[in-house]
Amino acid sequence: MQWNPAVRNNLRISLSLKRNSAMDGYEKPDHEVLQGLRDMANKLRIHSIRATCASSSGHPTSCCSAAEIMSVLFFHTMRFKAQDPRDASSDRFVMSKGHAAPILYAAWVEVGFVTESKLLDLRKLHCELEGHPTPKMEFVDVATGSLGQGLGAACGMAYTGKYFDKSSYRVYCLLGDGECSEGAVWEAMAFASYYHLDNLVAILDVNRLGQSEPTPLQHDTEAYRRRCQAFGWNAYIVDGHDVEDLCRGLWQAKQEKGLPTAIIAKTFKGKGLEGGIENEDNWHGKPLPEDCVEALLSDLQKKIQLERLLCPKLPVEDAASVDLKPISLPSLPTYKLGDKVATRRAYGVALAKLGDACQRVVALDGDTKNSTFAEIFKKSHPERYIECFIAEQNMVSVAVGCAARDRCVPFASTFGAFLSRAYDQVRMAAISQSNINLVGSHCGVSIGEDGPSQMALEDLAMFRAIPTCTIFYPCDAVSTERAIELAANTKGICFIRTTRPETPVIYPAEEKFEVGCAKVVHQSENDKVTIIGAGVTLHEALTAAEELATEGLSIKVIDPFTIKPLDTTTIVSSAKATGGRLIVVEDHYKEGGLGEAVCSIVAKEHGIVVQTLAVTQVPQSGRPQELLDLYSIGAKAIVKAVKDVIAN
Amino acid sequence: MQWNPAVRNNLRISLSLKRNSAMDGYEKPDHEVLQGLRDMANKLRIHSIRATCASSSGHPTSCCSAAEIMSVLFFHTMRFKAQDPRDASSDRFVMSKGHAAPILYAAWVEVGFVTESKLLDLRKLHCELEGHPTPKMEFVDVATGSLGQGLGAACGMAYTGKYFDKSSYRVYCLLGDGECSEGAVWEAMAFASYYHLDNLVAILDVNRLGQSEPTPLQHDTEAYRRRCQAFGWNAYIVDGHDVEDLCRGLWQAKQEKGLPTAIIAKTFKGKGLEGGIENEDNWHGKPLPEDCVEALLSDLQKKIQLERLLCPKLPVEDAASVDLKPISLPSLPTYKLGDKVATRRAYGVALAKLGDACQRVVALDGDTKNSTFAEIFKKSHPERYIECFIAEQNMVSVAVGCAARDRCVPFASTFGAFLSRAYDQVRMAAISQSNINLVGSHCGVSIGEDGPSQMALEDLAMFRAIPTCTIFYPCDAVSTERAIELAANTKGICFIRTTRPETPVIYPAEEKFEVGCAKVVHQSENDKVTIIGAGVTLHEALTAAEELATEGLSIKVIDPFTIKPLDTTTIVSSAKATGGRLIVVEDHYKEGGLGEAVCSIVAKEHGIVVQTLAVTQVPQSGRPQELLDLYSIGAKAIVKAVKDVIAN
Repeated sequence: MQWNPAVRNNLRISLSLKRNSAMDGYEKPDHEVLQGLRDMANKLRIHSIRATCASSSGHPTSCCSAAEIMSVLFFHTMRFKAQDPRDASSDRFVMSKGHAAPILYAAWVEVGFVTESKLLDLRKLHCELEGHPTPKMEFVDVATGSLGQGLGAACGMAYTGKYFDKSSYRVYCLLGDGECSEGAVWEAMAFASYYHLDNLVAILDVNRLGQSEPTPLQHDTEAYRRRCQAFGWNAYIVDGHDVEDLCRGLWQAKQEKGLPTAIIAKTFKGKGLEGGIENEDNWHGKPLPEDCVEALLSDLQKKIQLERLLCPKLPVEDAASVDLKPISLPSLPTYKLGDKVATRRAYGVALAKLGDACQRVVALDGDTKNSTFAEIFKKSHPERYIECFIAEQNMVSVAVGCAARDRCVPFASTFGAFLSRAYDQVRMAAISQSNINLVGSHCGVSIGEDGPSQMALEDLAMFRAIPTCTIFYPCDAVSTERAIELAANTKGICFIRTTRPETPVIYPAEEKFEVGCAKVVHQSENDKVTIIGAGVTLHEALTAAEELATEGLSIKVIDPFTIKPLDTTTIVSSAKATGGRLIVVEDHYKEGGLGEAVCSIVAKEHGIVVQTLAVTQVPQSGRPQELLDLYSIGAKAIVKAVKDVIAN
Repeated sequence: MQWNPAVRNNLRISLSLKRNSAMDGYEKPDHEVLQGLRDMANKLRIHSIRATCASSSGHPTSCCSAAEIMSVLFFHTMRFKAQDPRDASSDRFVMSKGHAAPILYAAWVEVGFVTESKLLDLRKLHCELEGHPTPKMEFVDVATGSLGQGLGAACGMAYTGKYFDKSSYRVYCLLGDGECSEGAVWEAMAFASYYHLDNLVAILDVNRLGQSEPTPLQHDTEAYRRRCQAFGWNAYIVDGHDVEDLCRGLWQAKQEKGLPTAIIAKTFKGKGLEGGIENEDNWHGKPLPEDCVEALLSDLQKKIQLERLLCPKLPVEDAASVDLKPISLPSLPTYKLGDKVATRRAYGVALAKLGDACQRVVALDGDTKNSTFAEIFKKSHPERYIECFIAEQNMVSVAVGCAARDRCVPFASTFGAFLSRAYDQVRMAAISQSNINLVGSHCGVSIGEDGPSQMALEDLAMFRAIPTCTIFYPCDAVSTERAIELAANTKGICFIRTTRPETPVIYPAEEKFEVGCAKVVHQSENDKVTIIGAGVTLHEALTAAEELATEGLSIKVIDPFTIKPLDTTTIVSSAKATGGRLIVVEDHYKEGGLGEAVCSIVAKEHGIVVQTLAVTQVPQSGRPQELLDLYSIGAKAIVKAVKDVIAN
């Protein structure tokens, strides 16, 4: 047993000395600049207070703690084009503590991009300045407001800047102290140091107070420093209301090579609002009381000494422009009819081909690449593969960051079940208008022996309830290849559901696929029932069709290809052609899956009766085919259902 | 700026000295005990290998790294009743690295609870020994297999042991190193130190290798120690294959007061499998090759020196038995018809009353208690309120831990939107057969100005796709109070959806409610259309009904009360009584919500046509009523839809 941490202590002390000596090159800003930054902080406070008063809601005290931080970032440290907020070479800023949105908007008022009158429409129905930041305003790359997600997205931007764009732009992320309780923050922390993202700076606004009580660490800035350092970051504690301290810390961050930097800023919630608000509990998310707001604003106004105009610094224009679309597979799929290929493997093959076609296609995976077959892409394009380890939340956030400003076309994969870990990140990605592609392998009970914890059985429900989402559920290798190609060119979030067992190729290499276009894969003139299957259950349906044919019963079988949108025309017309008899069979829970999607589109039709075969309980371990039969979604169950529906 | 970490270094050194001196009381186990533990480790290896060979799947190398840890825990450190695995006073063990299930099962073979022949049925269809641990086996309290969740559940058990049971049982959690990339682990780490859970021990099996490549920290055990210490834990590095080192570390953990302890065990994946498997990549999740397994087993067998029988130590029986059911509200709701009360507030009132009725009702919240109104419970029962801060994943896992072995009836609340953060934990809670209650406030666009990041619009889809889940969606304060009472007595996961704005009380205090029983809240003999609303949209439907009545049009309005299960009989009969015209209106996305639930139950009926009014895009900030109208789920839209459906 090794009890003595002396070695580490020595390392720390030497690092600390190195840091002090490294301050030698620092040039303190002159008095006027510093006063200008102090003045700007108070201007930002005033804007934030006026806006939240006008909307009678919002978080002015959370803005006030960050006022000096925002002032220094926007008017001293960051380099960006104030009139072109999505400029490729500009520094990025992520407001992870999204409830402080008004001070972000205020900064963009002061740089001249937003009008002051618009700011006073904060949170109103026809104003893009919402309660929390969304990309309806061009200066927002990723929506925030669900806490603890900004740093992961910032990691994706910094990774892209350092390794793909190879540009000098830097990424700044402002976090609240409360949100540092979110594990996603520490996933991002580990990621950033592992990948040496020295172009990334996290500023922690340690204002001590959460929504409903003090944060767990309150003003223990040393504890934050220990955590950041233990996760591999440079970490400096600063007085978050001292603009000079902030200038120095942020300058130091630029000097550090090889590691990201955390600026731990000790601040006070409601700073500048003396007389019972500053540093007091119970002021979270409340606009200032009408009876004292004018006095408080007047106090702040009096602190403003100079009417100096501050302008942001311009970036070095070294990020190349990229053209992402259209991205086409460089060659036809090479599979032959009847080949047995798992769609998860076909995903890897397809993505490697897409990577050949477009340099901006990148892959991410969470230490499952030998199961999802993202490893095939990695082998072809190692420089564009990002191993995210077992941290699915961060993987999705990193993908969102990579996709920001259209720099990359990311595909992130893991077991479909584990994407449930990142559902909040997916939800926020939709609000972010992000164009990410997520691939969930190992769907359903057909994975077999590993058991329910590894089976995605709610993923369709999850992704269907994401408004911007397109869902592909290919049944063979050829359609998988086209699904990946289509996903790369489809706006919004794309989810591709892949299957563990091998399934036979049923489409010729030349087959064309479109979003929202189903395929009738088995039919005759006298079909009595329409079956809709997808993935593995499509093949079960085809087996059932063969068996039924031997008994003289013919059925139509439909492959929906995309679950969202569904091909209403094909489904409704097929169902009507088979006497309104429609059976859906899916390797998913009954709720929210393909069956309900079909019920939903036929709900307004007369004369169609839908029966759904789906998993209805927590399943168990067993062999794949055993489980398909046990949960009545295999060929036997389909045969029985067809006979029953015809008999009734 | 404070550059010098000297203060902390001094603290560390003094802690280190204290630890060394604290070793004075340690009694080294005698030689025979130590050899017995070594032998046991190899027996566990042999079992794990045989079982995974028999199932032709599984993770033997992940078992082998943990063999000495499991041996020492089960046969030296832990105190438990081998024939009564759910004994209230026994130490708890959580196998967070669930893929090492075979070695857990092997340990229970060796203590005599599981037969060796059953172990050879691992992963087979009718064997409860599944691919990953589930509570089908009594010695499993919580299912694992989605990584990084075990420690949070262990925190819930340890919190319960220390603060509710006030018992001496201790909680041991075995984690893999790969899963330490999951942020949920660090949420749990922060929770455990904040609450001084000195009855909790985390053992990190640092075997260096993940599924598809080495872990980010590989064998850098010092880095793990730094992270654990920074998160407030005692942390010791041990040789995870040295049983004496493990005995000593685990003994030391028992001596520590006030803090949880992490044992960072340096191990080798596949330890004991010499000749190309031990410490080699590419052996994750693979049974040993048939051609070498007998030789490897023989090598292990040869290492076993003593045939000494080891028995686990018995616990001190100091955990009281508890009777959780039935739990009844001690008094009728005190609301009057027409009172305007937000259901979120009614939740807090109801839970405080339930807390009066049962000492085992506990509340958890993620720093939103002044919004969810969990604070009302906290004020009444501060000793049974657990503040989980902004870490929703851990909050759900802690709740699962509190509920284990039926020690508590937990209610955990946050904004419904943020429960999406914990969807994987909820999914696993269902596999764990857990009886937890989750309360999601701030559902839908009716929250207003805060904007889409704060609006739960996919929560019904999420929870509907959880097989063990009952969903309550009360529309007023009286029904909320009954929903909470019913939830406390309903097995499985209960989700209660509460609303931000105030809504009028429509039920008398004496009204009876049941799971799966809807209420027809407005009707007449000539109703032309049935409307189903829930929460805020029920009130919109009632407003619409009044307006339509002035035009001579009468409609039926149904409050489903529970969304899952739905009251099929009432809905179908009402729809048929109104000419098959059914309109569902919900403050949720269209996919997976109430509308689709209704479509699903009428899918097999002839002659019912369903129209759903729901949110169909990412919404925005605005006033609540403005947003209800903008997204066509308010009274105006209902009036129009009724007229349209009658006209067609």
